[in-house]
Amino acid sequence: MRVEVAEARQVARHALINAGTPPELADIQVAALIEAELRGVASHGLLRLPRLVERIRNGVTDPAARGSGRWRSPAVWEVDGGGGLGPVVACEAISHVSERARETGIALAAIRHAGHLGAIGWYAERIASAGQIAVVVTTSEALVHPWGGRRALIGTNPVAIGVPAEPHPFVLDMATGVVSMGKVHDYANRGKALEPGWALDADGTPTTDARRAREGAITPFGGAKGYGLALGFELLVAGLTGSALGTDVTGTLDSTKPSTKGDVIMVIQPDDGMVAPISAYLDEIRRCPPIDEGTAVAVPGDRGRMRKAGALVEGIELPDEIWAALRGLAADEFQES
Amino acid sequence: MRVEVAEARQVARHALINAGTPPELADIQVAALIEAELRGVASHGLLRLPRLVERIRNGVTDPAARGSGRWRSPAVWEVDGGGGLGPVVACEAISHVSERARETGIALAAIRHAGHLGAIGWYAERIASAGQIAVVVTTSEALVHPWGGRRALIGTNPVAIGVPAEPHPFVLDMATGVVSMGKVHDYANRGKALEPGWALDADGTPTTDARRAREGAITPFGGAKGYGLALGFELLVAGLTGSALGTDVTGTLDSTKPSTKGDVIMVIQPDDGMVAPISAYLDEIRRCPPIDEGTAVAVPGDRGRMRKAGALVEGIELPDEIWAALRGLAADEFQES
Repeated sequence: MRVEVAEARQVARHALINAGTPPELADIQVAALIEAELRGVASHGLLRLPRLVERIRNGVTDPAARGSGRWRSPAVWEVDGGGGLGPVVACEAISHVSERARETGIALAAIRHAGHLGAIGWYAERIASAGQIAVVVTTSEALVHPWGGRRALIGTNPVAIGVPAEPHPFVLDMATGVVSMGKVHDYANRGKALEPGWALDADGTPTTDARRAREGAITPFGGAKGYGLALGFELLVAGLTGSALGTDVTGTLDSTKPSTKGDVIMVIQPDDGMVAPISAYLDEIRRCPPIDEGTAVAVPGDRGRMRKAGALVEGIELPDEIWAALRGLAADEFQES
Repeated sequence: MRVEVAEARQVARHALINAGTPPELADIQVAALIEAELRGVASHGLLRLPRLVERIRNGVTDPAARGSGRWRSPAVWEVDGGGGLGPVVACEAISHVSERARETGIALAAIRHAGHLGAIGWYAERIASAGQIAVVVTTSEALVHPWGGRRALIGTNPVAIGVPAEPHPFVLDMATGVVSMGKVHDYANRGKALEPGWALDADGTPTTDARRAREGAITPFGGAKGYGLALGFELLVAGLTGSALGTDVTGTLDSTKPSTKGDVIMVIQPDDGMVAPISAYLDEIRRCPPIDEGTAVAVPGDRGRMRKAGALVEGIELPDEIWAALRGLAADEFQES
């Protein structure tokens, strides 16, 4: 089902407002979800919204919370998200650390007890578009097995890096699993086989059966190195935010438990003279002779930005049942429990 | 050839002192090289020393320079390394940012014009052993091709993460190439074939011929994601330090050009209450049922630490020609040019 962006935005907004979200906070959450749809990251798009509404109705997400922060030290903004919507708490935190980084050179927000941030490239792009360098790392439920191990003990722990450049910033946004659990579910629903090396079943045996993989573990990307990074990010985030570790992380995939993961958002003041050489270097990368004649070398962020330009004109593609669910939620009256 | 650690240290020290290095600075450079040997990272060990001496004799490394720093902003220590030895300049910078991070919560050193840092896990381990979180990123000569491209345009850009834990800190140290150029040279010298997917030849065609790969490019680890990280680190370091980018980077592999790469060392004050839960979590990872019954799951840093314990007793293994070269340099009188 193809839906115009403005209409999708309106429907999603009403769904959140009906669930008790103040309109200006609903706008932020919806902007994050719509941005993911526009860039073709459906796993972090509007399909997340019914779960968010359930979480609000179950009292594990507070749709009015913006998080309460304090300067733990001059360059570290410590935030208790208060169970608020992830993008709301994160954007609030970014306004503090971006301003502070202009003075101190670097500042970070250490956030816990906030909802799922969604696609973290969104934050990195906003920060880099405003002329600062961003590094964002966040944790998730344990879905990834250690390299050489059989059990899911590590989050899919994504990292985003944003660096100012012309005509648009460099934005990397990648999880440390070789594949997302969303994709595994999607393959299971379609009865499609996974690629070898993507996942283990519940016994810890490599499998290409997507239904069995749902109960098992995702393999880290890039073997032992990707495992090392995923684990390093888990520790970095917990060590800074006091968030839960491994299998104690809850609250981004379920609709009944508080969010116990953590988020770290670093903002760094760049050397302003570097925008021109960095932009020229990125163009050199784009012009690199390709291995496959038909496929130019891509700089991270380029393809998503092209998809977005198309989707803004053509609308976004949503599964019928998601669109029906959103319209249902937008029509409901919220019943305070 | 097996050499006692104390003897290797003495010989390496004399080689540097003969080349004009002040003894206390030679000690730091030698400590970095010996540590790499002890942990089994021979590519960053004593084989680098003859090249360092050549660089000093050619006037592109200043063995007496410690780098000159200033606070660009309250949490960013900007360092011009003055062509000094990498470990000397880095250790000096770390003393400043570690102290500052205790106040500000996070501080970073942005270093340019310093020599090769060697294995950057050494710095991360020192910082984490002293109770702070470390993130170290550095760039190198362009040896890695962009994903889908045929030319080496990106450094092997390693990252190290150190996090305090008991009984020893977590220390990740990994380059973003699937293999090091040192290993490619080693395979070429032994006439051994590379594994498929490791490298391209000078025309940008995948090859398993190590001699052809020496003239070509290393593949990023983990496909498009590893490429994204390698490029992200290249931009992050250049954006902060003003260092050169891509094929403009010189001075870590050659003996005639100034060092134009950059190094970023971040020190972050952790949540002190997290050492116990992080240590327990790392033990849970180590106890994860292994896929291969005989091979326990390893936490990054564990294997190197075990190797070090053994090597301290048994000595280090050095190729005969390297040991002969070091002994020659240790015996030489330095001729001021």
